[in-house]
Amino acid sequence: MFENKSKTELSTLGEFGLIRHLTEKIQLQNPSSITGVGDDAAVIDNTGKLTVVSTDMLVEGVHFDLSYVPFKHLGYKAVMVNLSDIFAMNAIPHQITVSIALSSRFPLEAVEELYDGILKACARWKVDLVGGDTTSSTSGLIISVTAIGSALKEELVYRNTAKEKDLICVSGDLGGAYTGLLLLEREKEVYKSNPGIQPDLEGNDYILERQLKPEARGDMIDMFKELDLKPTSMIDISDGLASELLHICTSSGVGCNLYEEKLPIDPMTFERARAFNLDPTTCVLNGGEDYELLFTIAMSDYDKVKGNPHITVIGHITEKNAGTNLVIRDGSVHPLTAQGWDAFQPK
Amino acid sequence: MFENKSKTELSTLGEFGLIRHLTEKIQLQNPSSITGVGDDAAVIDNTGKLTVVSTDMLVEGVHFDLSYVPFKHLGYKAVMVNLSDIFAMNAIPHQITVSIALSSRFPLEAVEELYDGILKACARWKVDLVGGDTTSSTSGLIISVTAIGSALKEELVYRNTAKEKDLICVSGDLGGAYTGLLLLEREKEVYKSNPGIQPDLEGNDYILERQLKPEARGDMIDMFKELDLKPTSMIDISDGLASELLHICTSSGVGCNLYEEKLPIDPMTFERARAFNLDPTTCVLNGGEDYELLFTIAMSDYDKVKGNPHITVIGHITEKNAGTNLVIRDGSVHPLTAQGWDAFQPK
Repeated sequence: MFENKSKTELSTLGEFGLIRHLTEKIQLQNPSSITGVGDDAAVIDNTGKLTVVSTDMLVEGVHFDLSYVPFKHLGYKAVMVNLSDIFAMNAIPHQITVSIALSSRFPLEAVEELYDGILKACARWKVDLVGGDTTSSTSGLIISVTAIGSALKEELVYRNTAKEKDLICVSGDLGGAYTGLLLLEREKEVYKSNPGIQPDLEGNDYILERQLKPEARGDMIDMFKELDLKPTSMIDISDGLASELLHICTSSGVGCNLYEEKLPIDPMTFERARAFNLDPTTCVLNGGEDYELLFTIAMSDYDKVKGNPHITVIGHITEKNAGTNLVIRDGSVHPLTAQGWDAFQPK
Repeated sequence: MFENKSKTELSTLGEFGLIRHLTEKIQLQNPSSITGVGDDAAVIDNTGKLTVVSTDMLVEGVHFDLSYVPFKHLGYKAVMVNLSDIFAMNAIPHQITVSIALSSRFPLEAVEELYDGILKACARWKVDLVGGDTTSSTSGLIISVTAIGSALKEELVYRNTAKEKDLICVSGDLGGAYTGLLLLEREKEVYKSNPGIQPDLEGNDYILERQLKPEARGDMIDMFKELDLKPTSMIDISDGLASELLHICTSSGVGCNLYEEKLPIDPMTFERARAFNLDPTTCVLNGGEDYELLFTIAMSDYDKVKGNPHITVIGHITEKNAGTNLVIRDGSVHPLTAQGWDAFQPK
């Protein structure tokens, strides 16, 4: 991707020089960020609130493929994935730390683009980058982000507190990120067998953006406040709806009925899934990386979400012994199974 | 290293199974750890204190060599390196998150040993493991640790607050970890050229332990309280004394005089350095990974550290224009230079 651009060897800057170069533009935005990059540790003042911490690691060749993921999007996504976890606690992120391991095959310009994406995601949610580590790797690129947020104790929403009869809700629509990935993988194969052919990505903006530039649903946290709605449980959808709903049910000790006909899917996702000979419902249930919020609400709060274009009620919580079920369009009931992405399965 | 032991393929557990297996023994010890592993994020209550955060990434082939580093020691060291950063702020660590990327060439037993070491380091300083991420890598092992601690605002010690005439002090002794590394590298070469020869590590326990099982100097933070001593600036020694002292001087806008004859070195370190035809002073100045604390104190506090076997006064802070100097044994003055380890230099 950097064939025609200027290249600066990382070794000309050295480790400290690189960190200084990348972080000198950072201006702390949060009053709670007392000290950022440049000391042994960052200092944060969340006095009166609880601190919420989440961490995720993205590995080249496992979570992303640099042959079609631009560095800037990768940086943006690495941050959004973590902010999504903080929002899923009904908390607000304020700081991140970022550790990057990269081999000397990457020029400075690539790292700068990565950082641009990281800082763009920070700016989107007024989050401060307050620390990190930059080192070399023997082969690929690895990005580890830790996000730190805060919430009042009574605001926090856990995943183990869903109750029988609660309604199961989801923000936005699902399956788009996965069909976007399939499209990118297809064009990569075409390109590999014939590098003269230009990738055919026209008219697929929505699903490509869902895959390459996911947006953490912080707007939902604001909306919950406006609606005076506190979910009874919540989790973000990184591994696929089925997997995440099973997490809620297992940790809450409850069952569920999920209705296929209620699942929100964008028309483009539906059409592209069909073009790939895939069941669109499978893409919605098991395609990951949508970073929407899956949450449950008390039935008495139904009026607060009714007709809201950002929220879809997709089922309800049952008692544990009723099992975790998917009710498909013909009315038949099937056990809900997670075929979510597993990092350790042989590929 | 696991030739004769039982092997369990990671893919038999899957990602969630592995995380559950590794974390099910964890019992939270700190009242401030409200929620640990098992939700989107950990929840921490440092109300009334400031939160201090530090992160470090260790990469196979760059920071460690599994041909002579046991997994348990690696886990222990990965945690200690981060706790050391929190202590270097004069703060107390309470929580860590750990992200691990590993290829399928590692059996479950290796990951268990790694985790044993991580939890042993946590137990040493009553720190809770509250979150993390476990994923696969395409090649080597990568460990990213984030440590979270707390301190009262008035207790925190930064690196940019050293003042002219302050005394420069260091805990423990220096250069041991580096000579230990040289010894391990030498024996690895011997083994590679003749695998029949057993490694000759006898009588080198101290320097091997300095390299393989470093101890973060949390005891010094307790001692500072007992001595009613607040350093004027502080940093931990990960890259070598010279590099760290230059960090303090640069960020504080001051100069220094460092005295070669005052530098603390263990007799074994001294002797082994000589056996490697190295100047022991070079090992002390530029050998990294000792994880001792480098700090400055007001001259008026000298009586508090005088005669203390854990603290050595090695120089003093000067005004910026006087430069950063090393006064060697013959009394001549030389500019202090950092030849510390640089991750991006071609090897």
